[in-house]
Amino acid sequence: ASPFDPSDDPHRRFNPLLGEWVLVSPHRAKRPWQGQSDEPNNEQKPSYDPTCYLCPGNTRVNGEVNPDYAGTFVFENDFAALKKDTVVLSEKKGLFQFETEQGCSRVICFSPDHSKTLPELTDQERADVVACWKSQTEELGEQYQWVQVFENKGAMMGCSNPHPHGQVWAQQHVPTDPAKKLVQLRAYYNEHKRPLLLDYAEQEVAKQERVVCQNDDWIVVVPYWAAWPFETLLLPRFDVTALHKLTDEQSFSLAQIIGDITARYDNLFETSFPYSMGWHSAPFDKQAHPEWTLHAHFFPPLLRSASVRKFMVGYEMMAEAQRDLTPEQAADRLKALSSVHYKKHGN
Amino acid sequence: ASPFDPSDDPHRRFNPLLGEWVLVSPHRAKRPWQGQSDEPNNEQKPSYDPTCYLCPGNTRVNGEVNPDYAGTFVFENDFAALKKDTVVLSEKKGLFQFETEQGCSRVICFSPDHSKTLPELTDQERADVVACWKSQTEELGEQYQWVQVFENKGAMMGCSNPHPHGQVWAQQHVPTDPAKKLVQLRAYYNEHKRPLLLDYAEQEVAKQERVVCQNDDWIVVVPYWAAWPFETLLLPRFDVTALHKLTDEQSFSLAQIIGDITARYDNLFETSFPYSMGWHSAPFDKQAHPEWTLHAHFFPPLLRSASVRKFMVGYEMMAEAQRDLTPEQAADRLKALSSVHYKKHGN
Ligand SMILES: O=P(O)(O)O[C@H]1O[C@H](CO)[C@@H](O)[C@H](O)[C@H]1O
Ligand SMILES: O=P(O)(O)O[C@H]1O[C@H](CO)[C@@H](O)[C@H](O)[C@H]1O
Repeated sequence: ASPFDPSDDPHRRFNPLLGEWVLVSPHRAKRPWQGQSDEPNNEQKPSYDPTCYLCPGNTRVNGEVNPDYAGTFVFENDFAALKKDTVVLSEKKGLFQFETEQGCSRVICFSPDHSKTLPELTDQERADVVACWKSQTEELGEQYQWVQVFENKGAMMGCSNPHPHGQVWAQQHVPTDPAKKLVQLRAYYNEHKRPLLLDYAEQEVAKQERVVCQNDDWIVVVPYWAAWPFETLLLPRFDVTALHKLTDEQSFSLAQIIGDITARYDNLFETSFPYSMGWHSAPFDKQAHPEWTLHAHFFPPLLRSASVRKFMVGYEMMAEAQRDLTPEQAADRLKALSSVHYKKHGN
Repeated sequence: ASPFDPSDDPHRRFNPLLGEWVLVSPHRAKRPWQGQSDEPNNEQKPSYDPTCYLCPGNTRVNGEVNPDYAGTFVFENDFAALKKDTVVLSEKKGLFQFETEQGCSRVICFSPDHSKTLPELTDQERADVVACWKSQTEELGEQYQWVQVFENKGAMMGCSNPHPHGQVWAQQHVPTDPAKKLVQLRAYYNEHKRPLLLDYAEQEVAKQERVVCQNDDWIVVVPYWAAWPFETLLLPRFDVTALHKLTDEQSFSLAQIIGDITARYDNLFETSFPYSMGWHSAPFDKQAHPEWTLHAHFFPPLLRSASVRKFMVGYEMMAEAQRDLTPEQAADRLKALSSVHYKKHGN
């Protein structure tokens, strides 16, 4: 038998955060594509759009008027997936189990400027976004066990408005994926007396095979077990369990590295790169979480160009996630790019 | 507190097959949609397309010529995600765990007619497809532990060619989701001495709240824990662990009920309804599987119309699946539709 070549031979990699496997089929990237292309949207947007329900001064569907905000602006989602006063009830036996959920859901505008996205803001403006994520996390963590900060960017990711914004959903129960992580991270901590993700960050920094960018406080890595083509994991290089525990310095270096990775993303296909990103702080269950390290995931769908995405369908929905290029190949491509946004490259 | 109304109040439901929760937020269906619309494709296709690499007599990328086939036609995927001769190797310690994978991947053409889809075939033609799924499952199950039969239908589901076809991927290891099912189904069987899915089918038939259609052998139900808006589960009403164990009669009644549910799907928005569907036979590990019941999932993305889909992004990627209408509401809508395909309704 020929020796194993991870950049050409099918293999599975283990995601230690979820306890799940991913199928890697690198040779498959060679197949021709005859399927759906999504139109990349590179039109220049205006700084203010009178029809946008997130722009300062505009009126939302429910009749409320947005203030003339300058930095970030947070409001309760007009069509929230969670309500704070749902009656507490559950059925935990048999095949029809449910529990009611209490929570809330807010929209976070990153900037009054309709035309900007995270990589196009200044470090200081991104630091304001980080500060907003922190205060939302702290406030909602006092009432709910789970606080999910996230951003859907781009129409391809179901984002219904191009105005730069994210969301925060908070709820009483720890959701499915974070609950899996808790189990995995605890098992590792019990065995090694070290948080898994701090060990992982250290090993990746030493290897330099999948690290895309780093500064003194943070690294961005295409994880060994990445499912999405250009998926990355943003990790602190210090022990911290939740967003609101970051110091001002750590928040600023975070703003910088977010600028770096999101600019590289846009530069990859010279398009506003779609993704879902989100933060996992430890559960707010009034327990210590020595096993947990704050981290963020970026899950971007694009595979070959600004218009051809990876579809997680069929095999992936029935069996397991599958990828067509190796995490190392993805990291190499992102590493080779400039961290200066292509729109600033003077063309 | 007001009483709990499952058709209006946020709650979580438990998926006993995967051991995971789904967030149900029914009131959210009321929000306006300003995001991406995919173009429905209702153009009439020709029965033969000279540029299609799946049509009889045409030449594929690798130079092979398709036979002049009449019923179904199976060939090895020219860009297979799995290879049969990958060297056996693994690393199961630490944070960089992998195992090589052996397997194969084939394309299954359902019909020589380029213009047809499953609901537009006759019962007899669909029975030929079932027979093909059975023989592929039997043959590949002799060599591999897992045989994944599936279909991606529609450009929205990453299907790169409209010619009616599915795939079968077979591999040495049981993939992530089936492995979870094995754990869950075994635990239920050990406790109840009955297969979970047979009990579930019986209870759904008795309740008639989520059953979309049924015949003497099969039921199609929007499962209590459905994640996708119009997701369904196709279940036998008799004890069977794998596709190739179906009798001819059971295969024919299966062909009939597949015609029924896929016609209802197309009728819902009068469009060729996109979905991924797939079969879960028990693992082929030479053990008895009294806990396992053969079943198929349909995961369709459409939510509001032929062009507006549900996006599983952001919260769903970071936390857990979330749906905007209840499974009961989805079942009611599918139940109310004709099982005769809209194109045959004489317009
Ligand atoms: O094999 P196809 O149809 O070219 O490809 C499609 O189905 C595969 C199996 O579900 C997926 O991995 C691909 O992302 C999808 O585009
Ligand atoms: O809240 P939005 O932006 O309207 O909606 C978007 O994000 C939500 C949270 O990830 C998803 O549930 C929706 O499917 C998606 O369209």
